[in-house]
Amino acid sequence: MNVREARSVADRSTARYLAGRELSTIDGMPVGIKDLFMTKDMPTRMGSPLFRDNHTHQDTACVQALRAAGAIVLGKTVTTELGMSYPGPTTNPFSHRHTPGGSSSGSAAAVGARMIPAAIGTQVAGSVIRPASFCANYAIKPTMGAIHRGERLALSQSHVGIHAGDLRDMWHVSIEVAKRSGGDPGYPGLYGETTLHPATRPLRVIVMEAQGAAELDDDSRDAFERFLTQLRHAGVHTIDRTNHSLVDSFERAIDESLEITRDVCAYEMRWSLENLVERFGGGLSDSLTSRLELARKMSIDDYRQLLAQRDKARAAHAAIAHIADAIVAPSSVGPAPKLDNQGLDSGISHTTGLPSYNAVTSVLGAPTITLPLLAVRGMPLGIQVIGQQHTDQHLVGLGRWISETIPARSV
Amino acid sequence: MNVREARSVADRSTARYLAGRELSTIDGMPVGIKDLFMTKDMPTRMGSPLFRDNHTHQDTACVQALRAAGAIVLGKTVTTELGMSYPGPTTNPFSHRHTPGGSSSGSAAAVGARMIPAAIGTQVAGSVIRPASFCANYAIKPTMGAIHRGERLALSQSHVGIHAGDLRDMWHVSIEVAKRSGGDPGYPGLYGETTLHPATRPLRVIVMEAQGAAELDDDSRDAFERFLTQLRHAGVHTIDRTNHSLVDSFERAIDESLEITRDVCAYEMRWSLENLVERFGGGLSDSLTSRLELARKMSIDDYRQLLAQRDKARAAHAAIAHIADAIVAPSSVGPAPKLDNQGLDSGISHTTGLPSYNAVTSVLGAPTITLPLLAVRGMPLGIQVIGQQHTDQHLVGLGRWISETIPARSV
Repeated sequence: MNVREARSVADRSTARYLAGRELSTIDGMPVGIKDLFMTKDMPTRMGSPLFRDNHTHQDTACVQALRAAGAIVLGKTVTTELGMSYPGPTTNPFSHRHTPGGSSSGSAAAVGARMIPAAIGTQVAGSVIRPASFCANYAIKPTMGAIHRGERLALSQSHVGIHAGDLRDMWHVSIEVAKRSGGDPGYPGLYGETTLHPATRPLRVIVMEAQGAAELDDDSRDAFERFLTQLRHAGVHTIDRTNHSLVDSFERAIDESLEITRDVCAYEMRWSLENLVERFGGGLSDSLTSRLELARKMSIDDYRQLLAQRDKARAAHAAIAHIADAIVAPSSVGPAPKLDNQGLDSGISHTTGLPSYNAVTSVLGAPTITLPLLAVRGMPLGIQVIGQQHTDQHLVGLGRWISETIPARSV
Repeated sequence: MNVREARSVADRSTARYLAGRELSTIDGMPVGIKDLFMTKDMPTRMGSPLFRDNHTHQDTACVQALRAAGAIVLGKTVTTELGMSYPGPTTNPFSHRHTPGGSSSGSAAAVGARMIPAAIGTQVAGSVIRPASFCANYAIKPTMGAIHRGERLALSQSHVGIHAGDLRDMWHVSIEVAKRSGGDPGYPGLYGETTLHPATRPLRVIVMEAQGAAELDDDSRDAFERFLTQLRHAGVHTIDRTNHSLVDSFERAIDESLEITRDVCAYEMRWSLENLVERFGGGLSDSLTSRLELARKMSIDDYRQLLAQRDKARAAHAAIAHIADAIVAPSSVGPAPKLDNQGLDSGISHTTGLPSYNAVTSVLGAPTITLPLLAVRGMPLGIQVIGQQHTDQHLVGLGRWISETIPARSV
C-alpha cells in the first residue's frame, strides 16, 4: 500500500470515529503483514527469489478480516525463506549487529522499532515468540487453529500469531480478526470477548525447562531466576519437575519437540518443495534443500510415529492442567545472537536464533504469550506464559497481571 | 497431456515391466484428475470461467504421487463450479439425457464409459459416491484426511476419493497414492496393505435411513429391499432404528447432515468467494452467489454450533461401532435424474442429483464405498457400505464379499 492509499484508508477511519461509527477496536490501526500471506494489492514474495513476481490478487483470510475491521494494511514484512530457516536482510531494531529473529523477522522488527503498533506473524516452531523476545514485543501464538491460516503451505503445526507494542493492541488485533475470518476450517477459532481480560493473578505456575534450559546463557539464567524470585515474592507458588512427578512426565514428553517439529514440517513440505525444484530447477537455499533431502528419506510410517509422539506430548500437557494456572519460561535461550561477519557483509546468512523454548508450544498447539520484561547485556529477552488449549483470553489476563506486577529489569 | 506424451509415459512403463522393475501396482495405469487439482502440464479451470487461464505449473500432492507411482496422468475431468452445485457439460455415459452426478462429474463419467480405469474425485457432501452411483463405478471416499488434499480451497469436510472400474484398481490407486503423498497434514493417512483385502463376510450390518430414505423412489426402494433380502439369505443379520435404540440415536444425530454440510462449507468458503467477487466483480453462478449470501449472514458462533453438531454425529457413529460390521444404504436416492430441457439446450443448467445419502459420511469423516450392484429403469444405482474411521481396508474386504456374493440385479 503506498502512502496516499494508506492516508486515504486512515482518513476514512477518522471520519468513522468522528461519526461515532468505528468498525472495530482496531479501526484505523496500521498493521504489517508477514510476507507469507496473500495481499491483493502487494506481491507475496515469501522470502524466496522464486516468488519475486508472485502477485496473487487476493487477500488471505486474516488480511481480509483486518480490512473489514478498518485496519490499515500498511505493508508486507520480511520473512525468512518460505517461513523456514534461511534469513532475510532485516536486522534487530535494538542493534543492527543482531538478528531480529525469524521467521517473522520483519513483523518483529517493525513493531520493536515502533514503526507500527501491530503485525501478523506465523509460527510452526518458534517464529512468533522468539523474534518477539529479541525485539521487546508483546506477542501471542494462540491455540492451534484459533486464527485462520488461509491457504498457504499447510503445515499441521502452523499458527497465525500477533506482535504488538502492548497487550491491548495484541488482543484486539487477535480477536477482531478471529471474529471476522474465524479459525482454521474445522476449528472453533479464538474464544473471548473483545475487551482485554482483567489482570488475573496466578496462584501457581510451572517453571518449564523444555529443551531451552540447557542452552540458556548465564546472564539470561540469572535474569530469569530473579524474575522467578519476584514472582514468588508477589505470592505466586512455583512448581517444577523436581517437585512434581506429573511435571517431570510432561518434561520427558516434550523433550524432542525440536526434532518432532523439524521432521513433521519436512515431511509435510515435501510435495510442495518437489514442485519448486522441478519447476525452477534450483533457487532453494542449502537449508531448505537439506530439509527436502530429509523428507525424501521419510516414509508415511515415520510420519505416523511423529504424530503419535505429538499426541503423547499433548496428553502430558493436558494432564498438568489441574496443578497450575500457567507455565512460565524464557521466550528464547538468550537475547538476539549477533549476526556473524558473513551475515553483516551479505545481509542474509546469519542465524535467527534457536527455538529451543518455542517448538514445544507449537507441538502442543497450546497458547503462549511473550512479555518484554527482561534485558540482558542491553538487549531484550521475553518471558513466556503458556496455557492450556482455548484458554487464550484468560492467559492474556495472567500475562497482564505479571507485566503490571513484576517490574521490567535489566541485567 | 497430449497423446504423444501419454504414449511416451506408457512406453517407459512397459519397459519397466519388461525389466521386472515396475514402480507400483498402478505403473502404467491411465488416470483422470478432477479439475480442482493442480497439474503442472495442464490448466486447472475448476469448472469456473474465472479460472479459464489458470496455469499453476505444479502438481497437487496426489497427482505428484500418481506420477511417482508410474501412472499416466492422462487428462483433467470436468467438475461443477468450484466443486459445488453448478454443473458442467458432462452427461451420463448410460444416457446423454441424464446427469453424471457431481461434483466429480467427469471422473465418474470417464470411468463409467470405460475411457479410463480410474479417476480422482473429491467429496464434501456427496461428490464422489453419488456420481459413482449414477455411472456404475466402484468408488471410495476414504476416512477423513486419508489421501492428501493438496492446497486447494480448504474445506474441513473435503475428502479425496477414487473412482474405478473394479475394487482392485480402486484400492491400488488409493493406497499407492497415500503411501507416497501421505494423508492431509496432521492426519495419519490411509492405513492398509498394497494388496486388495480378502473378501470378508459381514455378520451384521446396519441399514441406514439418513435423509435419503424419505426421498427414495419406489423402484429404487424395491431394488434396495431385494438386495437386503439377498443379503439376509446369505446369512447377514440386518439391524435398523426400529430394532436397536443406539441406531435410532445415530439416525437422530445425523438427520441434519445436509444442512450442516451446506452451512459449514458456506462459512469456510466465504473469504475465498469474497476475493473472487472483489477481483472479478462477477462470474459466479447464482448458486454460488447464494452460498456467499448465506455465509455473510453467519457468525463465528453459528459456525461453532455446526462443529458441535458434527462432533455429536461423530460420537453417535462411534457408539454403534460394536453392534455391526458396517452400515449399508443406497448410494443415491435413485438413478441419475434427467437433465431438464433447459439443461439439454444449454448443457449446463441441470441438477446433479441429491446428496441425501452422502452428506452423512462427509460429516462423519467415515469411510464409504459404493458398489454398482443395482439398475433401476435401465440406469445404474449403487449400494453404499460405510465403516468406522480408519477401517477402510477392512471395509473394502466387506464390499468385495458383498459384490462377489450378491448378484447384480436390474429392476
